[in-house]
Amino acid sequence: MRIQSVSELKSLERSVEQNTEQQRIDVIEILRTVKNEGDSALFAYTNQFDGVTLDALEVTKEEVDEALSSLDQEMVNIIREAAANIREYHEKQKKESWFFTREDGTLLGQKLTPLDSVGVYVPGGTAAYPSSVLMGVIPAVVAGVEEIVLVSPPGKDGKLPSAVLAAAHVAGVKRMFKIGGAQAIGALAYGTETVPKTDKIVGPGNIYVALAKREVFGVCDIDMIAGPSEIAVLADETANVKYIAADLLSQAEHDSRSAAFLVTTSNELAEQVSKEVEKQLASLPRKVIASQAIKDFGAIYVVGSLDEGAEVINKIAPEHLEIMTKDPMGLLGKIKHAGAIFLGEYSSEPVGDYFAGSNHVLPTSGTARFSSPLNVDDYMKKSSVIRYSEQAIKENGHKISAFARLEGLEAHARAIDVRLEEK
Amino acid sequence: MRIQSVSELKSLERSVEQNTEQQRIDVIEILRTVKNEGDSALFAYTNQFDGVTLDALEVTKEEVDEALSSLDQEMVNIIREAAANIREYHEKQKKESWFFTREDGTLLGQKLTPLDSVGVYVPGGTAAYPSSVLMGVIPAVVAGVEEIVLVSPPGKDGKLPSAVLAAAHVAGVKRMFKIGGAQAIGALAYGTETVPKTDKIVGPGNIYVALAKREVFGVCDIDMIAGPSEIAVLADETANVKYIAADLLSQAEHDSRSAAFLVTTSNELAEQVSKEVEKQLASLPRKVIASQAIKDFGAIYVVGSLDEGAEVINKIAPEHLEIMTKDPMGLLGKIKHAGAIFLGEYSSEPVGDYFAGSNHVLPTSGTARFSSPLNVDDYMKKSSVIRYSEQAIKENGHKISAFARLEGLEAHARAIDVRLEEK
Repeated sequence: MRIQSVSELKSLERSVEQNTEQQRIDVIEILRTVKNEGDSALFAYTNQFDGVTLDALEVTKEEVDEALSSLDQEMVNIIREAAANIREYHEKQKKESWFFTREDGTLLGQKLTPLDSVGVYVPGGTAAYPSSVLMGVIPAVVAGVEEIVLVSPPGKDGKLPSAVLAAAHVAGVKRMFKIGGAQAIGALAYGTETVPKTDKIVGPGNIYVALAKREVFGVCDIDMIAGPSEIAVLADETANVKYIAADLLSQAEHDSRSAAFLVTTSNELAEQVSKEVEKQLASLPRKVIASQAIKDFGAIYVVGSLDEGAEVINKIAPEHLEIMTKDPMGLLGKIKHAGAIFLGEYSSEPVGDYFAGSNHVLPTSGTARFSSPLNVDDYMKKSSVIRYSEQAIKENGHKISAFARLEGLEAHARAIDVRLEEK
Repeated sequence: MRIQSVSELKSLERSVEQNTEQQRIDVIEILRTVKNEGDSALFAYTNQFDGVTLDALEVTKEEVDEALSSLDQEMVNIIREAAANIREYHEKQKKESWFFTREDGTLLGQKLTPLDSVGVYVPGGTAAYPSSVLMGVIPAVVAGVEEIVLVSPPGKDGKLPSAVLAAAHVAGVKRMFKIGGAQAIGALAYGTETVPKTDKIVGPGNIYVALAKREVFGVCDIDMIAGPSEIAVLADETANVKYIAADLLSQAEHDSRSAAFLVTTSNELAEQVSKEVEKQLASLPRKVIASQAIKDFGAIYVVGSLDEGAEVINKIAPEHLEIMTKDPMGLLGKIKHAGAIFLGEYSSEPVGDYFAGSNHVLPTSGTARFSSPLNVDDYMKKSSVIRYSEQAIKENGHKISAFARLEGLEAHARAIDVRLEEK
């Protein structure tokens, strides 16, 4: 792993998977067909794209029971314990409706309401991660969303992976459908005979899913389009070389475009981590992917001080940040841009991916400058509440209508004036 | 205004301003040129599109002072008082960073951080509303955003409207630029020699502005694309006919595609409001616009009960809802989908547009199902904070690595395992 000058600091913007015009046209056609033809289009596309003829789109209770009993029971218990931790963390996020009053009788506030329904997309194949099911679903359950629908493309056997079904069941999903791709997004956006129309669609997917989400945005809400993963470690000379190398590689194994950075005040640590990464890489099952990521998007930066290190981190705005210094908590105030901040040597990034309770759906590619981890607020919306009083309008009505007339909106002004007249 | 059956209830989805492929190509070219050529491109486009040759892009302190002294001082005071009310309401929204601990030494929380910089777009011409400047800027000030930049296209005199400059000054904007259109969006997204790069761009604009915002999304954050305005009134037989008619027209005057609905339990009120709307329409300066809106997108629905009325409102999911019944607060719990809810006969919608303190940037076209009024959270982001302890990893490490291996992510598992070994 290369040691580089801070002056060579690269932007996290990486080439995103480019779509072709043909893909966009295909996606629009699929969405239109699902909107018009409903379930029959879903059966046909599932046959065409997933190579399987389904009897029914919805996962049955028997299939869920079978999945639960086919899995190692210890593993199911681990999923349950992780879910409980995730629930605990997300319950702390939940906000309540609130108001305040003025002496003139005015009441102002915000009414908080969960979304009615949410669709969670789970990719198929090797990218079907049960942990992501927990992370997408549990905040919705905590928010109070009544209808949470999971969709995922079936395998050649016409089933969803047992671990996905188990995680969905543990998380609290009541309805699951064996549909994927743009057709699944269309079903969630418009609704069909059996798939309910939802107000928001979350979860990652391939380029067709991403394009379809962008097309239906406005009909319903969508979450952000996630890029490849990143980790940055900020360390001083007290940090453990093996831990740092292992953590850098834990992100590098995700994708050949994943990024891994070490920012350190110690030249010696820099050299040691560089060597340790190569050593640990050699025996990794996914070493082809991880090596490519480390080669293309890995870097070690040596800085003059931890303050300078924090500045470098803020420029990177990494998805994951680990602080491994003598006093990690003391640096927290200097960090402005990071998706998740892991403090101290035992806070390895996979702790957050699976178990501690925080969400692993995080802003990537430097978008931590302006985006947040997936959280309960994403599944709720606010309504302003305004109660104006007779006293308030008598005292302020002439100001309000003057402001409206300044903007040339006479009907606005008259709506106030009519209330200042004698009834 | 027509009285219709609830069965004819229409969707709020209206045809949006359609862009042509040529417009999209033009916008991409403008953005690319601004990114590459900076200020010189801005001067050239301002000359081309706004028909004015500027000496400098930035508004000077002298221009702001001149604007403040040219306005009626009573009007400036009204703007100040409105700003103070808006500030009070938005300060109540501000959240703090928080954490909780577990007995095993784990600490989990969220660190809340304001965005570094925000760009507020203000349309030119007759759509330049000083009230919208207050609504876009003040939540950013309250959030703690350090750099708030206003952009707006100059008039033929090379200046921005006095009322806009005054409102920007009162709201707390330090830097204002005389640029508009797609070129202004490019400047805010990429930065130029004089215009700072910003992390989020908010504010309405024409089709070029909307297209440009969509193109730069990801480079920075953007707010939602707003549609035409709407109002729905839920009323029983106790409501004031004149008030309802005036309030319906206050939204109808915005745009010929604005929508106005009355949902009422009283046949008599329905008939009276229908007539009163026609009467008040006759003398409105913007009656051509308002008549068209009432004709195309206005409707009165008579319902059997207020419960049914609330259901109709939830189906409409209006931007603005007024409840004018004997007990408006008692209906609040039944309302799930509305941008802003105005309670009682003195809570006329323009009260919220200008003065009460709530935000008038609200979700339109039924998007209140899943979107919120502009608020302080929109100018802040969250970072997860995870501090795992030695005890916690010794107790749970084997579960975490088991979960990682279930997903085939060996490097994740090893990042945990290395911490379970003797050092």
